Amino acid sequence: MLIVMTMAATAKQVEQVIERIAALGLKAHPIPGAQRVAIGITGNQGAVEPAVFENLPGVLEVIPVSHPYKLVSREAKPENTVVMVSGVPVGGDNFAVFAGPCSVEAPEQTLTVARAVRKAGAQILRGGAFKPRTSPYTFQGLGEPGLVILRDVGREVGMPIVSEALDERSLELVTKYCDMIQIGARNMQNYSLLRLAGQTRMPVLLKRGMAATVEELLMAAEYMLAEGNYQVVLCERGIRTFADHTRNTLDLAAVVAVQRLSHLPIIVDPSHGTGKRHKVVPMARAAAAVGADGLMIEVHHDPSQALSDAAQAVVPDELAQLIQQLPALLPLTGRHLSRALRLSA
Amino acid sequence: MLIVMTMAATAKQVEQVIERIAALGLKAHPIPGAQRVAIGITGNQGAVEPAVFENLPGVLEVIPVSHPYKLVSREAKPENTVVMVSGVPVGGDNFAVFAGPCSVEAPEQTLTVARAVRKAGAQILRGGAFKPRTSPYTFQGLGEPGLVILRDVGREVGMPIVSEALDERSLELVTKYCDMIQIGARNMQNYSLLRLAGQTRMPVLLKRGMAATVEELLMAAEYMLAEGNYQVVLCERGIRTFADHTRNTLDLAAVVAVQRLSHLPIIVDPSHGTGKRHKVVPMARAAAAVGADGLMIEVHHDPSQALSDAAQAVVPDELAQLIQQLPALLPLTGRHLSRALRLSA
Amino acid sequence: MLIVMTMAATAKQVEQVIERIAALGLKAHPIPGAQRVAIGITGNQGAVEPAVFENLPGVLEVIPVSHPYKLVSREAKPENTVVMVSGVPVGGDNFAVFAGPCSVEAPEQTLTVARAVRKAGAQILRGGAFKPRTSPYTFQGLGEPGLVILRDVGREVGMPIVSEALDERSLELVTKYCDMIQIGARNMQNYSLLRLAGQTRMPVLLKRGMAATVEELLMAAEYMLAEGNYQVVLCERGIRTFADHTRNTLDLAAVVAVQRLSHLPIIVDPSHGTGKRHKVVPMARAAAAVGADGLMIEVHHDPSQALSDAAQAVVPDELAQLIQQLPALLPLTGRHLSRALRLSA
Amino acid sequence: MLIVMTMAATAKQVEQVIERIAALGLKAHPIPGAQRVAIGITGNQGAVEPAVFENLPGVLEVIPVSHPYKLVSREAKPENTVVMVSGVPVGGDNFAVFAGPCSVEAPEQTLTVARAVRKAGAQILRGGAFKPRTSPYTFQGLGEPGLVILRDVGREVGMPIVSEALDERSLELVTKYCDMIQIGARNMQNYSLLRLAGQTRMPVLLKRGMAATVEELLMAAEYMLAEGNYQVVLCERGIRTFADHTRNTLDLAAVVAVQRLSHLPIIVDPSHGTGKRHKVVPMARAAAAVGADGLMIEVHHDPSQALSDAAQAVVPDELAQLIQQLPALLPLTGRHLSRALRLSA
Repeated sequence: MLIVMTMAATAKQVEQVIERIAALGLKAHPIPGAQRVAIGITGNQGAVEPAVFENLPGVLEVIPVSHPYKLVSREAKPENTVVMVSGVPVGGDNFAVFAGPCSVEAPEQTLTVARAVRKAGAQILRGGAFKPRTSPYTFQGLGEPGLVILRDVGREVGMPIVSEALDERSLELVTKYCDMIQIGARNMQNYSLLRLAGQTRMPVLLKRGMAATVEELLMAAEYMLAEGNYQVVLCERGIRTFADHTRNTLDLAAVVAVQRLSHLPIIVDPSHGTGKRHKVVPMARAAAAVGADGLMIEVHHDPSQALSDAAQAVVPDELAQLIQQLPALLPLTGRHLSRALRLSA
Repeated sequence: MLIVMTMAATAKQVEQVIERIAALGLKAHPIPGAQRVAIGITGNQGAVEPAVFENLPGVLEVIPVSHPYKLVSREAKPENTVVMVSGVPVGGDNFAVFAGPCSVEAPEQTLTVARAVRKAGAQILRGGAFKPRTSPYTFQGLGEPGLVILRDVGREVGMPIVSEALDERSLELVTKYCDMIQIGARNMQNYSLLRLAGQTRMPVLLKRGMAATVEELLMAAEYMLAEGNYQVVLCERGIRTFADHTRNTLDLAAVVAVQRLSHLPIIVDPSHGTGKRHKVVPMARAAAAVGADGLMIEVHHDPSQALSDAAQAVVPDELAQLIQQLPALLPLTGRHLSRALRLSA
Repeated sequence: MLIVMTMAATAKQVEQVIERIAALGLKAHPIPGAQRVAIGITGNQGAVEPAVFENLPGVLEVIPVSHPYKLVSREAKPENTVVMVSGVPVGGDNFAVFAGPCSVEAPEQTLTVARAVRKAGAQILRGGAFKPRTSPYTFQGLGEPGLVILRDVGREVGMPIVSEALDERSLELVTKYCDMIQIGARNMQNYSLLRLAGQTRMPVLLKRGMAATVEELLMAAEYMLAEGNYQVVLCERGIRTFADHTRNTLDLAAVVAVQRLSHLPIIVDPSHGTGKRHKVVPMARAAAAVGADGLMIEVHHDPSQALSDAAQAVVPDELAQLIQQLPALLPLTGRHLSRALRLSA
Repeated sequence: MLIVMTMAATAKQVEQVIERIAALGLKAHPIPGAQRVAIGITGNQGAVEPAVFENLPGVLEVIPVSHPYKLVSREAKPENTVVMVSGVPVGGDNFAVFAGPCSVEAPEQTLTVARAVRKAGAQILRGGAFKPRTSPYTFQGLGEPGLVILRDVGREVGMPIVSEALDERSLELVTKYCDMIQIGARNMQNYSLLRLAGQTRMPVLLKRGMAATVEELLMAAEYMLAEGNYQVVLCERGIRTFADHTRNTLDLAAVVAVQRLSHLPIIVDPSHGTGKRHKVVPMARAAAAVGADGLMIEVHHDPSQALSDAAQAVVPDELAQLIQQLPALLPLTGRHLSRALRLSA
């Protein structure tokens, strides 16, 4: 921590700050400048709020210096983490494509889409059974029967499956039926849910909240690592800004930021990240080019009939064409399409 | 809903859109313009996603017209809702001051602060026992023992109490010990929690999420009203923007927007809304002047010793001075300080 | 400036940074911590970009500590600046109301509005003759004839006038006809225009840009003070955020931030700040309550006939009712309605 | 335009709105719905502000339907515009790399960088002589002597040059010495400058403002096209958001949005778009993958010695490696590296 004194601060005020630092068991390092004094602090500051100093007389501002994350930090673990999702590696030099319908609507629909995305080259099947919806009056997902459909379809086509958990009960069900738990953007700071997911020892896909900084995303992951679950994949899916040409603003530089700060893999969701079907494939290519560790894409064989988020679903042919472009893109960042090491069917 | 066709749309494409509308059991109203055709849609559109039309050939854009909220809407209930919190009315012409420590830290501290805010003129005592914290390594609140302290202190000083619930278990405990449940900004779109709170029949204080629009805030409240709980008080507590001189940007115009759209009361939290102690009182005055139905303010008798959010806590004297200014402000919007109709002690 | 080294930084890397600092004629203050080293820098850092250090090996981040503004800073001049606009004081304990039409449209309209705002109690007459419009096809203002109308009307009703300048030519004209130059939000970082306005020795009203931080607003003012013009009044008029219930998000806490950092007066424009007529008066009250030094409000006697920004203009009666509420509000922040010391007519 | 009435609107209020529409010479198309009435409007609405209707009794909201841009619109000109910059085509299937120092500092430095970027494969040389700087006390560029250096160096290495104009005088000088005029982000809504640039008949590079929507960017370009200058290249360079891991948030989806709405080329500036050297190359790849028409990249042979924006400059080797990756990327969007058709030296 660094404390910056006002230009008008008296020697007595500086002294008081230094005494306060000492009283907390920390060490003060005064730095006298031409115009003002600053005071560096060392020692174990974990338990000290910057605000302890902020309102002392003569203090202009308090600047936190150390970052609060530990286990997720690349400083703590320099090499990339590879998360295994029932045989499919995510992270390292593996680029994984998660694809499937926004919602599991029916066995037939799910199987149709699953076969199509499998054929197109996707590795992991996604599908929502518990849907967080802005309105209580819109389709909320099939619940457990949806997970059963997804599990059966996943076995049928030989793909691991991921589905979103919203609360304790749905988390138990997702843990029971799926290969990976998804924590959605709206729940990124639902710390109870994060702790429970951290206790499962299952791979978790954690989406960035719409108003979350990269640091907050990493801290949310830290909740799970602190519980002992290191199998966390992050996902950039757009942030909320003033820009109105997309539903969210996909922040691809966050991929580079995360990879610099953390060892965890990070994938990109251009479907929610743009909310517009015609922008999904271009932004997916951009995500691959920037160095993401994978993609999550919503696919529907007949988007005009989908019960949710139809505006952003691509058709299987679009996914196939995208995946065909990946071999040109992935080597640029030292990656290749993820290959299942052990197929579950 | 209104569908706007491109200038180049053919008559056949217009026809296809109209047929599609009819196929969904809705009624199409073509509006031929000089440059392009638009098509109004009437009928029960509740179950129809705009996206159903968005990717049809010749469609430029789809504009939703009806608002999705119903029970929270002022169109549904023109008169203001007054929520009774164990005898203290919130809403209508009553202006209620919620005050207390950020966290319940100890019986002595809580009682000291409670007596001070009671003396200063606050009506409802706030205090956190379950704290949503960005870092898993910082103080997370005392939990149930904290609620016991808060209940005992509330009885001692004769004030109803409100505390935040984070999940199913803490909701049960808050319901057991408190007079009002708080749902925090990070959980504004935790729909499972909203539904559970909606089932309690207890007053709920719902804080706006950092990236939530006014419409999303109202929809979150709608989840509780749809469960039968109409005792919901909303709270503006700042949104996330690029501005860096405050922790959040307090959006006071949201108060006016909510009051125009909804019958629910809305209060303002200038403590979280600014994150800076010296900005709390000025912004609290502004909230009263704009016509808010109350304030929620963090108070600590010794902010430099607080375990959380010390930077934004005011001292009791500052609260007292603020409340002394309210009689000059409240009549400007037809309000007066809320008076307890039945004291709980 | 403070340089924070990575945990893995070697002693040699630390040494290189220190040498680099010395080579620039500055003084390094190494602060060894438990986990990493930080290095404080003192000396005249005005000419040094933080980036000089940012890419050196072992550097984690560079934190600027000193603020870049000088003349606008309250540290440089502790007492409040009072700007005299042809006899009307703005700043200090004077609260000034700027009001008038968005655009000068015709002599009759301008005079009607001017008489109404004068009667309502406003002190300074505003009116646009040069309008920055998003579209080249909408009404761009009357230009010089508009300024002539405004000047004549100002003399007629005995009010100083302010109007916006967009470029060198319009600045000359505004300087010729008006008592105060307005620099609009879109030109807040038009540094050429700021310099020219700084050379005029006339009062300037500088509006905050839609994406400007408080620091950038102060730096824009610094451009004028650096040219020798200290008569600068700042204006908060809303920033661009994701919130869609208002045209901009009025950031009232910026008033408190500016007053803490600078001696310059700051007024609030709730007309552009909300873009909605029914939100103007509530937010104007809030601005007075927070401690602003004045208001700028668009008024039209018949908003439905206005050629520009009709959605946000209030009618004279609304302005009059607002001004009647000010005597209850202003004493709360130690202010009173500004009284002209010398009328220009 | 579409006018939505409140549920409680009376038949008389609907009638008044319809009369008002007729009085303006427009045609009303009432759409009676189950819950409320909406009224479509056709006719030449160019001169009508939505606000004319917004405050009529019974009106809930007014929704503009037509887009305000004309000449920049793809509806007006379906085929892509190719802008020729002294022999170098930008747009269509040509991908152009603009590179060079942030500022022209000295002949030697400029020539060194120019030779390096030419060798690396860039087509157009950029360099600032007039720098818009937040602080009046930092380096503001060399002015005309800088342009002379840039022109001489451009001739020496055989590259067309682009430099930023800030005002009328610098525009004249840039027009005199350069092949293309740059209008920076801070001046995107400096309409006087846009009009002057529109009168030059020279290629213009227009950067998106930090708080500008895609529609506002297109409208700013419309100012130039309306003056008769169709040689406009747009540039996405990051918007201002809450995200703090980059200086701005590079909004790559804006590229797709612009290309759908307009025929003008759009390039991407990852240097300002990220503000961090290590993020420039990954985001440049992403821009190429998304389908941008080119890149603008700041290069310095010794970033640690640069006088401005050193944190974001890449070294020539990084640029060369990036350009070597382009042949793998560009065919994915049907593009190839732009080849000069006529060298200017």
